[in-house]
Amino acid sequence: MRVIEAVVFDAYGTLFDVHSVVDACEDSFPGYGEQISQIWRQKQLEYTWLRALMRQYANFEEVNRDALKYTLHQLKLKFDNSIVERLLNAYLRLEHYSEVPQALKAFQPYKLAILSNGTTNMLETVVRNTGLRTYFNDILSVDELQTYKPDPRVYELAVSTLGVVKKQILFVSSNGWDVAGGKAFGFTVAWVNRQGKPHEELGVRPDYVVRNLLELVDTVS
Amino acid sequence: MRVIEAVVFDAYGTLFDVHSVVDACEDSFPGYGEQISQIWRQKQLEYTWLRALMRQYANFEEVNRDALKYTLHQLKLKFDNSIVERLLNAYLRLEHYSEVPQALKAFQPYKLAILSNGTTNMLETVVRNTGLRTYFNDILSVDELQTYKPDPRVYELAVSTLGVVKKQILFVSSNGWDVAGGKAFGFTVAWVNRQGKPHEELGVRPDYVVRNLLELVDTVS
Repeated sequence: MRVIEAVVFDAYGTLFDVHSVVDACEDSFPGYGEQISQIWRQKQLEYTWLRALMRQYANFEEVNRDALKYTLHQLKLKFDNSIVERLLNAYLRLEHYSEVPQALKAFQPYKLAILSNGTTNMLETVVRNTGLRTYFNDILSVDELQTYKPDPRVYELAVSTLGVVKKQILFVSSNGWDVAGGKAFGFTVAWVNRQGKPHEELGVRPDYVVRNLLELVDTVS
Repeated sequence: MRVIEAVVFDAYGTLFDVHSVVDACEDSFPGYGEQISQIWRQKQLEYTWLRALMRQYANFEEVNRDALKYTLHQLKLKFDNSIVERLLNAYLRLEHYSEVPQALKAFQPYKLAILSNGTTNMLETVVRNTGLRTYFNDILSVDELQTYKPDPRVYELAVSTLGVVKKQILFVSSNGWDVAGGKAFGFTVAWVNRQGKPHEELGVRPDYVVRNLLELVDTVS
């Protein structure tokens, strides 16, 4: 293990289970909860990549709303604004994965931060709601840069804010494409491969692959 | 209709049916042809967006190979390099949609070009194999720019090569995200919505929506 000074976590899918919105989707559209949640997540990611590349930034709340609307149109479901807002609110009440508090406790000797596509408002809300705020030194949003991961300028934000060199930052994400982005940038990288997916074929490999954050604690210590 | 001087076509999905590789996939992996083709296309697009954003360009032949490998791993199919190369070759023998020659004939009064993510080699091969080469003034590849659509620098390449101002270029694509990219850039844009998909929610709308290229001929003339 290289000498790590800081651990920087992705938020959605890594600390917080984005598919815990399934219940809210299922409540509003019985029988469609799982399908809505899957397409919504895929579209949400696509729209961040596309807008960053088009240089047409809109913040994550807007992109998330747009992705949800596309999803409901695609599934030919009838909806109004109140349903859209209710489902978007579910995004502020995501649950953390069960092992997260114990893992963050174990990582307390390091500087800890979140680096996410979410807006500061979305991130602070979900971190506060899950009782995790005290664990983190910094909560960093792409919003001030007006771009999205895996633009290297996003990863650079962690370096400049934490004052730690790239290789001494352990970047932790469950998203294979984010892992590739962080590794290409120069972080030491751990992939939390919760779903047993294959490696993304983007020309780099993470330094560590674990199934959950407690496995990562064992690997680092 | 604005005064159009040039018509610029996307290639894959617009002139050439990317799902005509289904047969080759089905031959190599009976029962999986449709599924391989769908995931392969999705991953191929994702990898272009991600690599452009990561500033880790690899050309479309490489990205296409990587996307196919990911797809076969995800589906847990056994394969070797000869199968991969055989399926990639099928990509050079895509078929054009049936109405393409008649539509291109009708568009002959305009300057015609292709603007595509493919390499020059891939594009020249498929255009020659389908007998369409004589219709086009220019075949423009992102390869010289080392980035991918919808990076506005790609669309700018059509302006600088053709010497026609943005709004007098009719950009034609079947891909909703490419339509959004071209429109945000400033082209006059037609979406060939072959599959009756909903509009992408990326903050812009195309000028025209048609089901196929002959419908577009009627709209423009």
